[in-house]
Amino acid sequence: MIGRRKLLAGGALGAAALASGCDCGDIARGEIGPVAGRRRRELKMVTTWPKDFPGLGTMAERTARFITEMSGGALRVRVFAAGELVSAFEAFDAVSTGAADLYHGAEYYWVGKSQGFPFFTAVPFGMTATEIMAWTEFGGGQELWDELAARFRIKPFAAGNTGHQLGGWFKRPIESLEDMRGLKIRMPGIGGEVLRRVGASAVALAGGEIYQALQSGAIDGTEWVGPWNDLAFGFYREAKYYYWPGIHEPGAQLSVGVNLDLWEELTLQEKTIIASACHRANHLAIAEYGHYNAVALEQLVKEHGVELRQTPQDVLQALAEATRAVLAELAAGDDITRRIFESYKASLARSQEWGRISDEAYMAARRAVFSL
Amino acid sequence: MIGRRKLLAGGALGAAALASGCDCGDIARGEIGPVAGRRRRELKMVTTWPKDFPGLGTMAERTARFITEMSGGALRVRVFAAGELVSAFEAFDAVSTGAADLYHGAEYYWVGKSQGFPFFTAVPFGMTATEIMAWTEFGGGQELWDELAARFRIKPFAAGNTGHQLGGWFKRPIESLEDMRGLKIRMPGIGGEVLRRVGASAVALAGGEIYQALQSGAIDGTEWVGPWNDLAFGFYREAKYYYWPGIHEPGAQLSVGVNLDLWEELTLQEKTIIASACHRANHLAIAEYGHYNAVALEQLVKEHGVELRQTPQDVLQALAEATRAVLAELAAGDDITRRIFESYKASLARSQEWGRISDEAYMAARRAVFSL
Repeated sequence: MIGRRKLLAGGALGAAALASGCDCGDIARGEIGPVAGRRRRELKMVTTWPKDFPGLGTMAERTARFITEMSGGALRVRVFAAGELVSAFEAFDAVSTGAADLYHGAEYYWVGKSQGFPFFTAVPFGMTATEIMAWTEFGGGQELWDELAARFRIKPFAAGNTGHQLGGWFKRPIESLEDMRGLKIRMPGIGGEVLRRVGASAVALAGGEIYQALQSGAIDGTEWVGPWNDLAFGFYREAKYYYWPGIHEPGAQLSVGVNLDLWEELTLQEKTIIASACHRANHLAIAEYGHYNAVALEQLVKEHGVELRQTPQDVLQALAEATRAVLAELAAGDDITRRIFESYKASLARSQEWGRISDEAYMAARRAVFSL
Repeated sequence: MIGRRKLLAGGALGAAALASGCDCGDIARGEIGPVAGRRRRELKMVTTWPKDFPGLGTMAERTARFITEMSGGALRVRVFAAGELVSAFEAFDAVSTGAADLYHGAEYYWVGKSQGFPFFTAVPFGMTATEIMAWTEFGGGQELWDELAARFRIKPFAAGNTGHQLGGWFKRPIESLEDMRGLKIRMPGIGGEVLRRVGASAVALAGGEIYQALQSGAIDGTEWVGPWNDLAFGFYREAKYYYWPGIHEPGAQLSVGVNLDLWEELTLQEKTIIASACHRANHLAIAEYGHYNAVALEQLVKEHGVELRQTPQDVLQALAEATRAVLAELAAGDDITRRIFESYKASLARSQEWGRISDEAYMAARRAVFSL
């Protein structure tokens, strides 16, 4: 485990002290060396995830470990699960004010600060995991994100992605839009608002409350993440119909936010270490969700008799129409939100046309004609 | 530019010398600090790419720069384009023998060393960019890759991906399999072998030779990479039919190989720096190809009148059949190749089922019902 030591030194340590080998055992063994001439500091990373939560919590732990290891302990990142230092939704303010140094979370939690934030995580019918990478890193997304987050003294990075999130678990089959009306479905955020517009009753429940609500009949259906995280919660025992595709979070990008005052005083070396740790976490998250979702899907179907059902066309159409209205309202927020929306829209339109003739067409063709 | 300085010191520099500020200007300014107590070393990175080649060459440069910056110059990576130190195909041997320290390239170039290598880049009808990440990082791929490469004293990492490569440019339309017979098409490697099995005449030409061959009529068609790299070569001026999807390289993973003797003497800090630089390069490559392919596709169609054509069903079917045979022959290589093939096959089958109900279904549904 990382991040358990207390701050090694209150102020700057002289380089001579480091060089003389009088610091901690790691350095004396020559296994990990700090950056010469820099003081060692412990950084507090608050997160929006439960401790060690598979995928999300471990992604934060991994990012922290990479920073600690790559800096030779000069930046020693200590991770706090949601509730340990501040609650999940207080993570943003904690980093903004400097009470914590960085967060690992999801930008759509900060929608109350600006309606521009959700575009950097996921919006219904929006970008897939690789599409949001293209927009963020090369399509102008990062620059807008920097501008928005800087207003709150935060420097943001992409630092994970859950990949596609499925449509969720239902106790009874959904044959048409009519079957959605009045259903009580667990879906928070913008996806929940979209569901309400098509006549369902969307409720926001924390992860730990969902199973009980499904069991008691307080809700008729729920989404969570995807096969891997959903299997762990055992939803299949209470609701056997699993709907695909999902449209509410087609590739939820997770993020790190660094306090901007801290960021600005870091060296190029330290900045590159933090950015690389975040981007490596993104790489590994897509790989991890890809692998474990595929493994869990097989288990759900073969061992637990889960029935995969395709979301009906009229439901998709109604959800699409509602989404257009909800996003238009979202985009009519502050000036920067409008610019974020326009940039997102243009990038998505281009990516969709490229995806149509590449990955989408390829996957369909491979399924149709090939097997190993 | 990185990697242009000469080795700063021949042997180990004492930590005291570093601490006293007698080293280079970067350190004196406190902007970049080397690892305390470690000697500074220059690492030679040979590559299989032309200098500054967009996407591929810049991916190698970027990986090198990340390592240099994150180590505070303790590992100063100097990049050599193909032909500068050794030719592209000699990169593997150079790193294997220690003549160079690391390479950035593509594993399928080493097929002569073992038929297991191509699976870590791309095979026809194989994994997409995110599928090969899932297999490599969490599905057992990296362990097999480590085992294979260690026989040549190399430690490998995923360090880039071109994303989907399109079917290529043709002077005349391909309406059916019959139209493929006898056509002279530029396609190297396993894809070329598959083409030969369906009656085409596949030729291997280096990138710089393709345009001329297309212009003179020496070839009837060519594949290269995708819209971004293809646009730069101007193929659309000589062949206006652009076929989708491609099946030969559905997501070519690029790689870094580190000399294993060097790797084994690195500290945890240095190892994490190299691994993180590689994985960040992978993240950025997918983002970069995603963005610039989408932008270039729009230009090709709107400004250059390129005609996008779907690969006919009977051509896909014939290519699939030929691929099954070619891959079976490839897998019948040495013992480890058989194990790599079995692992790849199992992971691909799982990923395909997950992709069917997630990204593929989502992209199709979004196109059908949604627009912003």
